[in-house]
Amino acid sequence: MANSASGDSVVDRVVRVIAAFPEGVLDLPLSELAARAQLPLTTAHRLVRQLAAHGLLELGAGGSVRFGLRLWELVNRNSPTLALREAAVPFMEDINQVLNQNVNLAVLDGWDALFVERLSRRGSAVNRAQIAGRMPVHVSSAGIALMAGQPPEVQAEYLRQFHDPALKLAPEELRTLLRESAGNGFAQLAGVVDPDTWGIAVPVRDPRNRTVAALGVVVPLMDVRLQALVPALQTAARGIGRQLNTGREPNAGTSGTSFRSAEFV
Amino acid sequence: MANSASGDSVVDRVVRVIAAFPEGVLDLPLSELAARAQLPLTTAHRLVRQLAAHGLLELGAGGSVRFGLRLWELVNRNSPTLALREAAVPFMEDINQVLNQNVNLAVLDGWDALFVERLSRRGSAVNRAQIAGRMPVHVSSAGIALMAGQPPEVQAEYLRQFHDPALKLAPEELRTLLRESAGNGFAQLAGVVDPDTWGIAVPVRDPRNRTVAALGVVVPLMDVRLQALVPALQTAARGIGRQLNTGREPNAGTSGTSFRSAEFV
Repeated sequence: MANSASGDSVVDRVVRVIAAFPEGVLDLPLSELAARAQLPLTTAHRLVRQLAAHGLLELGAGGSVRFGLRLWELVNRNSPTLALREAAVPFMEDINQVLNQNVNLAVLDGWDALFVERLSRRGSAVNRAQIAGRMPVHVSSAGIALMAGQPPEVQAEYLRQFHDPALKLAPEELRTLLRESAGNGFAQLAGVVDPDTWGIAVPVRDPRNRTVAALGVVVPLMDVRLQALVPALQTAARGIGRQLNTGREPNAGTSGTSFRSAEFV
Repeated sequence: MANSASGDSVVDRVVRVIAAFPEGVLDLPLSELAARAQLPLTTAHRLVRQLAAHGLLELGAGGSVRFGLRLWELVNRNSPTLALREAAVPFMEDINQVLNQNVNLAVLDGWDALFVERLSRRGSAVNRAQIAGRMPVHVSSAGIALMAGQPPEVQAEYLRQFHDPALKLAPEELRTLLRESAGNGFAQLAGVVDPDTWGIAVPVRDPRNRTVAALGVVVPLMDVRLQALVPALQTAARGIGRQLNTGREPNAGTSGTSFRSAEFV
């Protein structure tokens, strides 16, 4: 393996190039890509050309770089996330129709809710959950629903490291929120991200009763049809859970988050 | 750049590892991954460990390898495909509801239709189009609709290399099919992939009138509501086209396919 003077490998540098794109940015000038990846321009250019030769990146005439269709294809045709999504989408469409709301699906990754699917409806409330976007657990109802379903030792670890002075949310309040969410079978957060909306989310459990995803809607603050929303979400979540294959043991994993991402197989 | 005895670079080998997963396979034993990537087991293991350290792959306890959530996230949050998908999904939901059919969205990549989105409906006809799956142009209505909208020189190049003796489809018949599809504003193929279904697809054109995608449905062979299906699809396709941003020039590109994939920005 070739290591640079700073000790990083080619693999590290390839990953830095791919990870250099800020969320939602489709095109990045090569010079900015190099700066963000903390690589010399010539190194970045060489890596981009090599990745472009395989169709994983595309290098435009103006020197801008974007992800190639081939990379999208390779990742999506073999993604565990896609299997979860395929199971969930028909039920998400049902919610979308029956409740006339945006509906989203999230998994836990580290201490974030990572949104893996969203169906929108024209005219429904603003939903900040972008596909492949993240929100910290404590500011999203999906995050709370996901964390409330984790084993006690994971919740304890989460609460131990929790720190968000800007929100004035004490770990003790967060602990209460998680306990209530687990008891009620749904999580509800008002106005943390967008002051005019509620987020409501329920856990999706696989046949082994592990919480593997959260199904949620975002509704206007004045919409108080909670009693109708929650059972509909819970019904859809049970339908999704039944579709999930449980044939595979969770990964022992090599990274700290694998016990979470391996759970939704 | 470190090159092995066979002259391939680390980047080449990383790409071979990622591309080694057959379509739809979520878990691959490390030994099979090494064989498919044509790498010594120790090399494959080292690359997998390095990629796993960044969360791009996950290495299970039993020695099986899968794609990491982080890789899915990085690729999807910055994908041009996602921008097309975001524009299309609300209109695809409309079709799904109004026609009560599976609906799919494809882009042209090389001489294949690459399916970037699909919405299913329980009880509708079998739709073989998997997300991130491919079909050769000549066996899918989406492929015909896409190719019929390409510049004459691209169509000529396609017809020149076309060869599929098993199907007994002469290039001249294919040329007629493309011409008719362009004239009619939709493509229709019966029974090529699945003998009990029709595929019907219409082009999605961006504001510059370039064909950037195809919107299609798969219906049972006995369903002859063509006169209702085609205008609904065309209406939805125009709606999608209006949403597409045309602010960016197509890439000059470094690969042979970039003129296609760059078009749907």
